[in-house]
Amino acid sequence: MASRSLGAGAGSQPPTVAVVGGGQLARMMQQAALALGVRLRCLVEAHDSSAAQVIPDSIVGQPADTNAVRELIASAGVLTFEHEHVPQRVLSEVAREVPVRPGAGALLYAQDKIAMRRRLAALQVPCPEWAEVTSTDDLAAFGERVGWPLVIKRATGGYDGKGVRVIDAPESASDWLEGPGGVGVLAEALVPFSRELAVLVARRPSGELRAWPVVETVQRGGICAEVVAPAPNLAPEVAAEAVRVATTIAAGLDVTGVLAVEMFEAPAGAPEPVLVNELAMRPHNSGHWTIDGAVTSQFEQHVRAVLDLPLGETTPRAPWSVMVNLLGSELASPQEAYPDVLARCPRARVHLYGKSVRPGRKLGHVTVYGHDLDACRREASLAVALLGGREGAQDE
Amino acid sequence: MASRSLGAGAGSQPPTVAVVGGGQLARMMQQAALALGVRLRCLVEAHDSSAAQVIPDSIVGQPADTNAVRELIASAGVLTFEHEHVPQRVLSEVAREVPVRPGAGALLYAQDKIAMRRRLAALQVPCPEWAEVTSTDDLAAFGERVGWPLVIKRATGGYDGKGVRVIDAPESASDWLEGPGGVGVLAEALVPFSRELAVLVARRPSGELRAWPVVETVQRGGICAEVVAPAPNLAPEVAAEAVRVATTIAAGLDVTGVLAVEMFEAPAGAPEPVLVNELAMRPHNSGHWTIDGAVTSQFEQHVRAVLDLPLGETTPRAPWSVMVNLLGSELASPQEAYPDVLARCPRARVHLYGKSVRPGRKLGHVTVYGHDLDACRREASLAVALLGGREGAQDE
Repeated sequence: MASRSLGAGAGSQPPTVAVVGGGQLARMMQQAALALGVRLRCLVEAHDSSAAQVIPDSIVGQPADTNAVRELIASAGVLTFEHEHVPQRVLSEVAREVPVRPGAGALLYAQDKIAMRRRLAALQVPCPEWAEVTSTDDLAAFGERVGWPLVIKRATGGYDGKGVRVIDAPESASDWLEGPGGVGVLAEALVPFSRELAVLVARRPSGELRAWPVVETVQRGGICAEVVAPAPNLAPEVAAEAVRVATTIAAGLDVTGVLAVEMFEAPAGAPEPVLVNELAMRPHNSGHWTIDGAVTSQFEQHVRAVLDLPLGETTPRAPWSVMVNLLGSELASPQEAYPDVLARCPRARVHLYGKSVRPGRKLGHVTVYGHDLDACRREASLAVALLGGREGAQDE
Repeated sequence: MASRSLGAGAGSQPPTVAVVGGGQLARMMQQAALALGVRLRCLVEAHDSSAAQVIPDSIVGQPADTNAVRELIASAGVLTFEHEHVPQRVLSEVAREVPVRPGAGALLYAQDKIAMRRRLAALQVPCPEWAEVTSTDDLAAFGERVGWPLVIKRATGGYDGKGVRVIDAPESASDWLEGPGGVGVLAEALVPFSRELAVLVARRPSGELRAWPVVETVQRGGICAEVVAPAPNLAPEVAAEAVRVATTIAAGLDVTGVLAVEMFEAPAGAPEPVLVNELAMRPHNSGHWTIDGAVTSQFEQHVRAVLDLPLGETTPRAPWSVMVNLLGSELASPQEAYPDVLARCPRARVHLYGKSVRPGRKLGHVTVYGHDLDACRREASLAVALLGGREGAQDE
């Protein structure tokens, strides 16, 4: 229970929002918070992290360290997150002192994929067939039922394709299932799908809920590479079902703040038009297009939601927005490409996260909005190719 | 002369932009810079100033203190400003070490209104009749010629209506003209005008120049109260002349970065359709609408221009944008109105500057964009009235 009201201790100042995490999500949250006159303070891994570069009131520490999180919330009105990796014991400890949004009860389902599947089943949300497996025998039985290959996921700690495997036989999971390194493992049927969709919703404690249009996401190697908003050629009844599923989850799991629901769109004729793949309880890569492409960005909405303020309109500002991620770069710094990219891609809205270059690292993204989807896609892809020092490369 | 290249000393990092000033303009510059992955450091008057709240790398010091400015530019690639109050001796000192944009030669015309009028006359830019006056006799002679009442302005140091007087007789200027407190005084004819316009342009050192659409500004008590973009019912030939004048000034004065030119639109039949009133060589209140209403905001453009990067498109994103300033508030903090304002004004894009409330102080602004000008104006005005705790007050 929260024992402190949002404004308390701050006099006439607006409440400070404490954020666990110091990456690009907290950085982009700051872009929204500074316009609202809302102060952020964040818990970062290093003093020069992406977010710490733009949030003076940053504290270096670990999310699993109760004392660090307790220091973070000193004088803050609310605690929120840019990732789900805060242990439940820390959450329950600090929830006595400050509202935690989303709460520990909701976050559990973003932290533990088995708990998530169990809860979604109870809510009758369409999911791929799944099973909790604790042995290769379990896995063999599950594979017997749903067929091979299938997907296994570590129940906890995975992200961006890590902790996920597609396997052909039970033995391929033995390192996860056996011995002292054993972890909770979720097995899922490898469902046929026509494409991947995502629905972003925001919900405030008082219950108000808003959804942005359903988007199409293109994944490469388990990492989001491209997002098209809204999803092209999406049947209205599928869009409606996708939004219904996402809002059911947000309300059913008592999520506060932004929730991203990643889904598979089933091929025509399947019993369920969409199946839920993953959840994220925070601003999400599938929503970066909203900064430039929607009336209210996911980052502003998240700040409003966790402060229990009225939510903003989620209407797109252009017929199409295409967001392409910059993953690594051949350049020492992607900004070296600015003279070229800003001249050749006049519609590109470039976002760089202030991170040093490492192979495959999410260094930034580019959004292009407009009336011509193909032109948006081409310009966003060219901008990212230039920022990556990979112009003309086949994979761009 | 600059002896340091933009990237030098920073290895693979993008150049840091040093900004003199720690108010809302530097704060909004940070909103743009953080997306570009460009670092700002600013020279602030207090450690918790509007900009320092969001720019970790802030230095407390005075713009007239060469050592403070020298500390500011350490490791920066370029020096720029959010106000014009940096003495020429400081500018020429630091220009040896880093590019100063706009340069001292250009800034002079924003610092000294007499120098400005002289230069604009040489460029044949249409201005109100003016004279440099050093005595009440001078002033009497000028008044004889152009008629009373007329306007006097302190040549240096004025802003937001300060340092400007409308007078009926020469004696009303005696305190400025006589004795040890005497200052340079510019006298100007009080020209009849139908309304006030402003043109915002950006220019980079290599010469590229972009103008946003001409806007209408509404001043109250010498302070900008409201801006409508684009200026409604503006004859195309007047718009073209206004842009021609602004670009002539930007090029003629060798301005780099954003330049705002405030103008009077003359009544129908006057010999000149527009007359130049004031200049500002920095992002300007008349351009705040560009954050939400244009493809490229004036703040992003300023950062791009001073880094000599290609400039962005200045196209509006909606048919109309209305920006209304929040000047003071009856509330302890304008954010107290958020539950109300965000619910009742769903299209309001609220910007608060993190400043404590003082009467008449610029605390923030609201922009509403859309297809219906009157609806935009009403919603922006209502939002500002609510943030000011003045809902229903007659002057809103």
